[in-house]
Amino acid sequence: MAHPDANLSDILNTAIGIARHAGGILREGQAAMRAQRGGALKFKSSDIDPVTEYDLRSEQYIVGELRRLYPGHRIVGEEGGEYAGDGPQSQPYTWYIDPLDGTVNFAHGFPMYCVSMGLAVEGEPALGVIYNPATDEMFAAAQGCGATLNGAPIRVSATSALSRALLITGFAYDTHTSDSNMGNFLAFQRSAQATRRIGSAALNLCYTATGQLDGHWEMKVQPHDIAAGIVLVREAGGTVTDFDGGDTMIASGRIVSSNGLIHAAMLAVLQAAGDRG
Amino acid sequence: MAHPDANLSDILNTAIGIARHAGGILREGQAAMRAQRGGALKFKSSDIDPVTEYDLRSEQYIVGELRRLYPGHRIVGEEGGEYAGDGPQSQPYTWYIDPLDGTVNFAHGFPMYCVSMGLAVEGEPALGVIYNPATDEMFAAAQGCGATLNGAPIRVSATSALSRALLITGFAYDTHTSDSNMGNFLAFQRSAQATRRIGSAALNLCYTATGQLDGHWEMKVQPHDIAAGIVLVREAGGTVTDFDGGDTMIASGRIVSSNGLIHAAMLAVLQAAGDRG
Repeated sequence: MAHPDANLSDILNTAIGIARHAGGILREGQAAMRAQRGGALKFKSSDIDPVTEYDLRSEQYIVGELRRLYPGHRIVGEEGGEYAGDGPQSQPYTWYIDPLDGTVNFAHGFPMYCVSMGLAVEGEPALGVIYNPATDEMFAAAQGCGATLNGAPIRVSATSALSRALLITGFAYDTHTSDSNMGNFLAFQRSAQATRRIGSAALNLCYTATGQLDGHWEMKVQPHDIAAGIVLVREAGGTVTDFDGGDTMIASGRIVSSNGLIHAAMLAVLQAAGDRG
Repeated sequence: MAHPDANLSDILNTAIGIARHAGGILREGQAAMRAQRGGALKFKSSDIDPVTEYDLRSEQYIVGELRRLYPGHRIVGEEGGEYAGDGPQSQPYTWYIDPLDGTVNFAHGFPMYCVSMGLAVEGEPALGVIYNPATDEMFAAAQGCGATLNGAPIRVSATSALSRALLITGFAYDTHTSDSNMGNFLAFQRSAQATRRIGSAALNLCYTATGQLDGHWEMKVQPHDIAAGIVLVREAGGTVTDFDGGDTMIASGRIVSSNGLIHAAMLAVLQAAGDRG
């Protein structure tokens, strides 16, 4: 359904500009980290952590711009907590900001990290912008406007059998102490063609939206990890639900996204595996 | 140690040219597959499989060139079996060719596939060229000459603690019926910072050589999957062994590669996990 808010495409263009600039901050950080080690990619543990530094810089820039341009909007960020907005409490806009998704990859120089900006209108994800500065990929979508990669329309895949599907997942950091998601992983290892893991929930949703992956599942994700990507997959023609086929992804932290054709089969595997994290 | 064969750097330049052209064939194939579905990325199951088609074209080109330029060399390919060479049986050169590593990724348009060309001299991997046409990354190394990415020197990471290490692995196709490597995967989930999986053994070795990943383990790999990458990691300053710290990677199909600093810790985890495939 097209969203009634005519401003959404204006906000989308603004968000694209902000995400690109924030990605530039991350790219600078990556270059500084390389220089610090004379061409190699990792920083010394004795230095002040540049990952934290550039993560915070990226967030400060994004939040500063959003507060300046949309003072009434609510902002929920990964690092800086929540900003309530200046407007009346009843205003419908909430931003979910991840200034650096894929922090571990960023720290190691593995080029799978991004800036993610999602906007919910009356609780419903309505706009998403995700930018990978390492690969210069700008993913953008707004409800009713379609989804694009660097300006060109994208669409989910046509793979109709789970046994032929390439899937992706992630594991929460607490797998050091528990085996969260391992039951699901085993079940999909047996039922899908193959599974991948690149370490960024936001990018998992992007590459499902482009059709380069057929489906994605993950648990223990935060709203800022997925708010933007939900819009991307849906506007690219795909399906996004929680593990039960419902709409509680943001509340439950459990998400299944796919090209739609394999969605029921994915939900059935998750039901049978029974691992909810 | 520097290899005594003065021709090795000439052969390296020739192999780079061949790998780049073969990668061009794969890139063409990817474009044709997209066009076939009107911009989307996957082929219809009713069509002749373009994956097989471009895989074979790539191999035919590589083998043709090697036979023309080095008629005495032995060639072991993934698709076409073995070519014994015209020279005396005692000649020391054997090529290990993978015209398309990461076939499943290629089929889905996920940009992690490559051409891999390894050359062993008297059984010892001595030269490796790996080209990812989707990202235009050319990895090259010859014994004693160092390792490069697109002509610039590369070096393994400086991460010294396994708990801070980003690792990568792969799962053989037969995980549909067995749980090969799952015990090791669980053990590293608990002991390393995080694990990734991109679906190409050759590229796993490349990104370990660049230091973007700290270490890699895999089992049930074929000689053509790893012969080139072994040289890349070693020439980038890293360590490559089998699961017991020995040199039987090609014979056993089990490989551990790392920056060297975390190598003993990785071997200890594999010993304790005890999963040998």
